[in-house]
Amino acid sequence: MTNRRVLLKRRPVGEPKPTDFEVVDAPVPTPQDGEILVRTIWLSLDPYMRGRMNDVKSYAPSVELGQPMVGGTVGEVVESRDAAFRPGEFVLTYGGWQAYHIARSAGARVGPFGPIKLDPRAAPISTALGVLGMPGMTAYVGLYDLGQPKPGETVVVSAAAGAVGSVVGQLAKIRGCRTVGITSSREKCEYVLKELDFDACVSYRVPDLAAVLRDACPNGVDVYFDNVGGDVLKAVLRVVNPFARIPLCGIISQYNAAEPPPGPNLGPVLVNRVTIRGFIVSDHVDRMPQFLADCGRWVREGRLKYREDVVEGLDRAPEAFIGLLRGRNVGKMLVQVGADPSRH
Amino acid sequence: MTNRRVLLKRRPVGEPKPTDFEVVDAPVPTPQDGEILVRTIWLSLDPYMRGRMNDVKSYAPSVELGQPMVGGTVGEVVESRDAAFRPGEFVLTYGGWQAYHIARSAGARVGPFGPIKLDPRAAPISTALGVLGMPGMTAYVGLYDLGQPKPGETVVVSAAAGAVGSVVGQLAKIRGCRTVGITSSREKCEYVLKELDFDACVSYRVPDLAAVLRDACPNGVDVYFDNVGGDVLKAVLRVVNPFARIPLCGIISQYNAAEPPPGPNLGPVLVNRVTIRGFIVSDHVDRMPQFLADCGRWVREGRLKYREDVVEGLDRAPEAFIGLLRGRNVGKMLVQVGADPSRH
Repeated sequence: MTNRRVLLKRRPVGEPKPTDFEVVDAPVPTPQDGEILVRTIWLSLDPYMRGRMNDVKSYAPSVELGQPMVGGTVGEVVESRDAAFRPGEFVLTYGGWQAYHIARSAGARVGPFGPIKLDPRAAPISTALGVLGMPGMTAYVGLYDLGQPKPGETVVVSAAAGAVGSVVGQLAKIRGCRTVGITSSREKCEYVLKELDFDACVSYRVPDLAAVLRDACPNGVDVYFDNVGGDVLKAVLRVVNPFARIPLCGIISQYNAAEPPPGPNLGPVLVNRVTIRGFIVSDHVDRMPQFLADCGRWVREGRLKYREDVVEGLDRAPEAFIGLLRGRNVGKMLVQVGADPSRH
Repeated sequence: MTNRRVLLKRRPVGEPKPTDFEVVDAPVPTPQDGEILVRTIWLSLDPYMRGRMNDVKSYAPSVELGQPMVGGTVGEVVESRDAAFRPGEFVLTYGGWQAYHIARSAGARVGPFGPIKLDPRAAPISTALGVLGMPGMTAYVGLYDLGQPKPGETVVVSAAAGAVGSVVGQLAKIRGCRTVGITSSREKCEYVLKELDFDACVSYRVPDLAAVLRDACPNGVDVYFDNVGGDVLKAVLRVVNPFARIPLCGIISQYNAAEPPPGPNLGPVLVNRVTIRGFIVSDHVDRMPQFLADCGRWVREGRLKYREDVVEGLDRAPEAFIGLLRGRNVGKMLVQVGADPSRH
């Protein structure tokens, strides 16, 4: 039995290439006292991982060269030396791009998630990486706590068909807001309009995005949940209402940039008294219980829908990740690393 | 008796020129029921006036061509048809660039300030345009309410020798913060260090402002009160601490730009969970009593110092305003339009 792992081989310059990664087989590790050995079933791919590939000081440490890429995982306990876990149980961990990993519930944790036990009868275990996991909670905290949308206001979200954006729009609808998505394609707009019930959707690949947005938002923009930055943020700033709130969740448009590009002119922020607030979901773990209660219920009631974009096999994680940064996925990007015995 | 007025003759492209203004003599207006006739003593010059010269939608209407430039004024009641005011009393009004004007306390007001009676024994009447007026309140609201500085934190302010910046720094000191100014010259740094007791001051005319700031702020930057935007904001964003607050008060660096220039890269805002918040003091009039109580006391106690940069005569208002936008003034820029009988 070997442990397949995807290591960071080179720090990418610009867009990551398959050769920046290396797939290797290593021995399966042995858990020590207080540890569990987990077989990875689902690996989450998220845009933030691009930042971890750089050797730049940030809110979380970089991945070291020769080490496995980091990432949220859902797996099955194979061996346990922790009385709280038994073999066969499902857990959410931060296991990274590998087939097996060690997790420990006490002491130092790697990443934002310790091993959390998952009940496959409550929800499909893969949702702990998506709509009921970090992306869903990012949407919940960013929209409700930071964006503070009021019923009747207009909420715009970019990367609207993605793991976070698709939840943002549905939470805005639940709050009673007019909800407008921005995506990269007509197909994605189709998805958020028909399946997720957004009020409007525009593709950012148009000559004058601000004009198109103005049409889609006849009452202006009160909350802009920004996942992408760049020209999209610039266009939205031309349409914001006084006292608009802009939770800044990501800047996907520049994650592959070798040099940080200039940002938007801040004149509209001053004139309209806009609040731009950068946030990181791991600062808000205190909101986890309320998030799970609300979103768990809405998922069960069918008011909060989700889609998973699954690639099979760890070897394909690099190409799937490169595609994610290009906006190829619809819904939550997952790698199925191993069989999921909870699915029948 | 004629009413000298400075009219907006042309909308400036780039930096205003003296020929964008026109000085004319008009008849002195006659007050109607409920109105007062005011003789202007002091005219305030402020950077925001540059925006009013443009024909662009903003939070306040533009000055129309052929109309007097707008502005805060302190004057003497000459004639009153309002029982609340008597000739010889001093009032704060929004009279604009002219020697006489009509004000009314009821009904529609021009600008943020209605006629407010001033007591020359409480403080020099000109301070109602500076440290105890709109600039002082801008500093008070922006720093305390939006910046939320805690004792021991580091507060940085740009345009630190100006009407707003000089108050921001002193309020930060009163709060117990390390206070660092950014100005355009060594002379201004000298002023804020020696007279206003800032802890450090740097000129932005250096090759690597971020490095100089890093030296001046060994514990990073927790609050940046931004009056200028542009390259200075860009440099500060390289030195901000996690959870820093940036009240955005002005963007002087771009007021003369024909096209809005790009802004700073927002990567540090995301990574450090920074809040950037544009604000306009007139949204916060509810804070006026507390501002006047606190800052009035600190001025009397000598803890809050101020300097006035006075030019004599309304005819010189255009050149003084052009100099203000170039950063030539130290302290509050005022035009003395007429004699001040309250000064002995």
